[in-house]
Amino acid sequence: MSDTDPLVIFTPSGKRARVPAGTTVLAAARRMGVDLDSVCGGRGICSKCQIAPQIGQHSKHGVTVSETALSDWNKVEARYDEKRGLKAGRRLGCQAQIQGDVVLDVPPESQVHRQVVRKAATVRDIRMDPATRLFYVEVDAPDMHEPSGDLERLNRALKSQWDVGPVEAPLQILHKLQPTLRKDGFRVTVAVHQAHRGPARLIDIWPGLYEGGLYGLAIDLGSTTIAAHLCDLDTGAVVASAGLMNPQIRFGEDLMSRVSYAMMNPGGDREMTRVVREAMDQLSADIAEEAGIAPTAIVEAVIVCNPVMHHLLLGIDPVELGQAPFALATSDAIDCATAELDLARINAGARAYILPCIAGHVGADAAAVALSEAPGEQDELTLIVDVGTNAEILLGDRERVLACSSPTGPAFEGAQISSGQRAASGAIDAIRIDPDTKEPRFRVIGDDRWSDEPGFDAEVTGICGSGIIEALAEMRMAGLIDTSGLIGSAAQTGTDRMRVEGRTHAYVIHEDGDRVISVTQGDVRAIQLAKSALYAGARLLMDERGVDRVGKVVLAGAFGAHISPKHAMVLGMIPDVPLDRVTSAGNAAGTGARIALLNRAARAEIETGVRRIHKVETAIEPRFQEHFVAANALPHATDPFPELRAIVPLPELSFNQNGEDGGRQRRRKRR
Amino acid sequence: MSDTDPLVIFTPSGKRARVPAGTTVLAAARRMGVDLDSVCGGRGICSKCQIAPQIGQHSKHGVTVSETALSDWNKVEARYDEKRGLKAGRRLGCQAQIQGDVVLDVPPESQVHRQVVRKAATVRDIRMDPATRLFYVEVDAPDMHEPSGDLERLNRALKSQWDVGPVEAPLQILHKLQPTLRKDGFRVTVAVHQAHRGPARLIDIWPGLYEGGLYGLAIDLGSTTIAAHLCDLDTGAVVASAGLMNPQIRFGEDLMSRVSYAMMNPGGDREMTRVVREAMDQLSADIAEEAGIAPTAIVEAVIVCNPVMHHLLLGIDPVELGQAPFALATSDAIDCATAELDLARINAGARAYILPCIAGHVGADAAAVALSEAPGEQDELTLIVDVGTNAEILLGDRERVLACSSPTGPAFEGAQISSGQRAASGAIDAIRIDPDTKEPRFRVIGDDRWSDEPGFDAEVTGICGSGIIEALAEMRMAGLIDTSGLIGSAAQTGTDRMRVEGRTHAYVIHEDGDRVISVTQGDVRAIQLAKSALYAGARLLMDERGVDRVGKVVLAGAFGAHISPKHAMVLGMIPDVPLDRVTSAGNAAGTGARIALLNRAARAEIETGVRRIHKVETAIEPRFQEHFVAANALPHATDPFPELRAIVPLPELSFNQNGEDGGRQRRRKRR
Repeated sequence: MSDTDPLVIFTPSGKRARVPAGTTVLAAARRMGVDLDSVCGGRGICSKCQIAPQIGQHSKHGVTVSETALSDWNKVEARYDEKRGLKAGRRLGCQAQIQGDVVLDVPPESQVHRQVVRKAATVRDIRMDPATRLFYVEVDAPDMHEPSGDLERLNRALKSQWDVGPVEAPLQILHKLQPTLRKDGFRVTVAVHQAHRGPARLIDIWPGLYEGGLYGLAIDLGSTTIAAHLCDLDTGAVVASAGLMNPQIRFGEDLMSRVSYAMMNPGGDREMTRVVREAMDQLSADIAEEAGIAPTAIVEAVIVCNPVMHHLLLGIDPVELGQAPFALATSDAIDCATAELDLARINAGARAYILPCIAGHVGADAAAVALSEAPGEQDELTLIVDVGTNAEILLGDRERVLACSSPTGPAFEGAQISSGQRAASGAIDAIRIDPDTKEPRFRVIGDDRWSDEPGFDAEVTGICGSGIIEALAEMRMAGLIDTSGLIGSAAQTGTDRMRVEGRTHAYVIHEDGDRVISVTQGDVRAIQLAKSALYAGARLLMDERGVDRVGKVVLAGAFGAHISPKHAMVLGMIPDVPLDRVTSAGNAAGTGARIALLNRAARAEIETGVRRIHKVETAIEPRFQEHFVAANALPHATDPFPELRAIVPLPELSFNQNGEDGGRQRRRKRR
Repeated sequence: MSDTDPLVIFTPSGKRARVPAGTTVLAAARRMGVDLDSVCGGRGICSKCQIAPQIGQHSKHGVTVSETALSDWNKVEARYDEKRGLKAGRRLGCQAQIQGDVVLDVPPESQVHRQVVRKAATVRDIRMDPATRLFYVEVDAPDMHEPSGDLERLNRALKSQWDVGPVEAPLQILHKLQPTLRKDGFRVTVAVHQAHRGPARLIDIWPGLYEGGLYGLAIDLGSTTIAAHLCDLDTGAVVASAGLMNPQIRFGEDLMSRVSYAMMNPGGDREMTRVVREAMDQLSADIAEEAGIAPTAIVEAVIVCNPVMHHLLLGIDPVELGQAPFALATSDAIDCATAELDLARINAGARAYILPCIAGHVGADAAAVALSEAPGEQDELTLIVDVGTNAEILLGDRERVLACSSPTGPAFEGAQISSGQRAASGAIDAIRIDPDTKEPRFRVIGDDRWSDEPGFDAEVTGICGSGIIEALAEMRMAGLIDTSGLIGSAAQTGTDRMRVEGRTHAYVIHEDGDRVISVTQGDVRAIQLAKSALYAGARLLMDERGVDRVGKVVLAGAFGAHISPKHAMVLGMIPDVPLDRVTSAGNAAGTGARIALLNRAARAEIETGVRRIHKVETAIEPRFQEHFVAANALPHATDPFPELRAIVPLPELSFNQNGEDGGRQRRRKRR
């Protein structure tokens, strides 16, 4: 390039270079390593390479861009604009030629590797680099005198036009390869799956330029619920989300009861495999419908789950996970066809990626949390708890990351709670109790008003998981529950909202005809068991690191997003830290799945990363039991919780007059 | 090694080296690169590493081997001998330690890469190196404190004990991995498929030492018949052979009529795919039963076939193969699961390998013939014709190899022949006609005597493919057919074996009550069409090479094995060469399949080799038609056949009095 060649500056990258006059913007971008998309390979039909020339003086860059810096519109560009319309100020990078010094802005939608911004400020954005991408190619027509297969010529075109491949073609692609190539004169768009390892594969093929988009599913397969996000593999946007109950619940509410079911019932594992696959198949069709896309536009699914779900999804009898030494059949990441998992409605060539498991009790969901929250990149010692039916707990910083799981049971999700229900319209999700009058006020899902505000008339149907946490914590602060978790009588608490139930008491939050929404002693016990397991797991990891305090706490899990940190701490669910050091990561496992879906390097990263995570096995650790027993009290029998006590009242009460509780504070068996 | 260390000489390799005293024979063999088998990895249980010490003086090697050259039997060896019995003079190489100078013979059954001797002296033997092999491993038990998946520990064991892998495990192996590992204390035998490309794969797993053997199918999928050889993947031996009719025959006798069926009947291709897969599934079960092995011991299938069979087997609509430019969907070799081809009864993890196709009319069967007969390694210009419903023709030497196919139709296989039948008991397969009396004598399959020998009383049911060739050639030499192929009348030929049939005549070979075995004018015309196509194809290749003569001719195809070279030449099926330059290669395509089954390097070799074969497309070559017309005469209208005429009488006759044949010598349409 001579000094008289036009100077080209791309923004936002800031890359600059001189290129010979007449070079197209796309060619210049490729030569300069600027991230400018193109599906059609410069033929002026896909419009993915749009750029915006910045006419005028740019003192920052030291150039002045004239109106003639780019060539006039040619026929291709004019035809595109006529047929499809180009936004004002936009040009097709593959057609516009550089004629003078120019500043060219590459808008986000023209970048292959655009950044997908995540809400939480603490974590990295996602750089788009999905495994499956579209390539438009013009394939040579067959020549009888130089015979070669259509697939081989397609591969030649992919190599020469995109430097991609060779790609393998599964039989179902070979079945339609020939007619598809011939529908539009050997011009086709192919979806190619190029994982971080293994061969490149043809996923699908369409005649001409395919414009239907590619989508992927990020699925968090939990014991209780299956949640899926449908992501646009071009923009990274979540275009729809859907969830349904895991139908395996009918075989057992928690993991261990499902393992037992498989052990007791020959073929029981296969039955559970079948129902969960059917549910996922249904879910993928539902979510496509919700987004208004063809299910066949879904070409990838990234799945995260705990080890028992993992094995049942893959059709592996989980019996070994029910007993020490809790051996996984395989811990490495799984890359297979979604068809092998009976996902029949999405694209027949779609691929599934299941994140690696960390250990027999610490699954791909924990790996996904690690991928999303990056504990190994934190300066401060960070405790991450992913609260679900089984809690995944990670503790780490740059020095070392530890992980364990703890069997909290489904109480946090509103199961085993007398007025419990899932987080849906009508469920109480927030509650405050006046410490003087002991009167409650609350909000229900679907209504922004508090129950004591004018016009509140929502139907109240139950309490969801975060509601029960708040209810118990408020009762503890208002002096309705003592340190041991015992609910006081009407006499002891001074409110006639206390009802006698056998030998115990229940606090009535809401009454409407026959429907009584209350917190019973059983509810308190269920939450105590769950939170003790959670806290004991966290403490076990802190022991392993030799610390008594952590720097910050991240609450994760679909439910984690709704927990009030203060209330969680009042119950002693999490160790004592300043309240502003508790943040919510939302469904971190689901986010981890989404990251692995949108960026294939993240798959390699977590596959290496899980090997560096030190696993602590709660089931065989004697200290776990000690921690569990000590954690039963609200907030804790021995840990002082000074940060918490500085900001909330925690009346020291004991309602125990007849030893009601003595026999029930037993170690909760691992189920 | 010092000069005082024992000197070890292995035979037959002749490899020699000094090793420290106390080294086991197996360790010494491995160190010295001697081919000594072992499945159990030196644990004294598989007995694959047996060797025979050669006690005494060996002047050739310059050593004397004493009785104490190897250590005494240890407990492991003694226990093996007690339980299983060792042949006299044999030792277990993994147990016996070298103590003095020794000559050790490695018997063929102890060699991994033993040579499988082929019958034909002209071709190379097969070196055993199958893709699928057994490995016995002792896997670490799971450790809760160092969690890892069972598959990952199996891979660790394979790496450390065999330097194999990592292997990928398909889901059906993951399903049984855990119980299998636990049946015999984490000792298992695995069958690992290590192809010449692609990842290593687990095919199957058994508890403890598996001794059931591994088998592979070499399948020649022809338009008319499907032939399979079952091979022992350890020894290379063919342990059973079986064949059945291709059930697609009911959709069309030859390739083009099947392509037409697919074009005319929506779903017709899928129907043909289904029936051929069912037949192959049945065949594989039958052949396993015949050999007395479990079908699940079959872990590989190598398939060769023509392009139309290839596409129909893979489920690809063959419509493109029915019209110029005859484009294959894919020409490269196919490596897939046999389950994808619906072979349901053999091992669920078995792999299929289909050889590459050369062109739209020159298929994997021709590639297999090239692999078996190695035209590119011949010093002399060699013509190879693989005779079947479609003929594959190869012409080559070290300089260059050419290939084409020619649509001979099924006449050579006894179809379209009035008294034709397949080569089975009762079929005439050899015939001689006395040139003076015009009386025939013949032999039928199932009886070694000629029909004029005393005691001949076999039932005669028809004429098979090789029989009709001989009958026509004998009729030509005896003056019963003229140069143009016209059968003479009783008056013209002087024998009342001639019957009038409309305007033509038929020669009666055998009559038994109502059953008349004769050669009709229609039979002659059918064979003429077939042989003209064959000869024209060969001539086209000779034109391309610029030659009028070839050095030798190899007849291949199941049918090629039974053709009498002299009779074939009398009919002008093959170009004129000295008779002793015509050899039979038997089922060369089937042999090629067997080579690719037993030696994975052969797969790489043919994949590269097919790219160097120059394809000639008969269907569009104008000279093909000229050659075809000229080849209609017996033996030929213009080619002189001097070698043939030197040894057989070829009376120059013309029975044509009314121009019967004039209108029928038209170009046979490609069907």
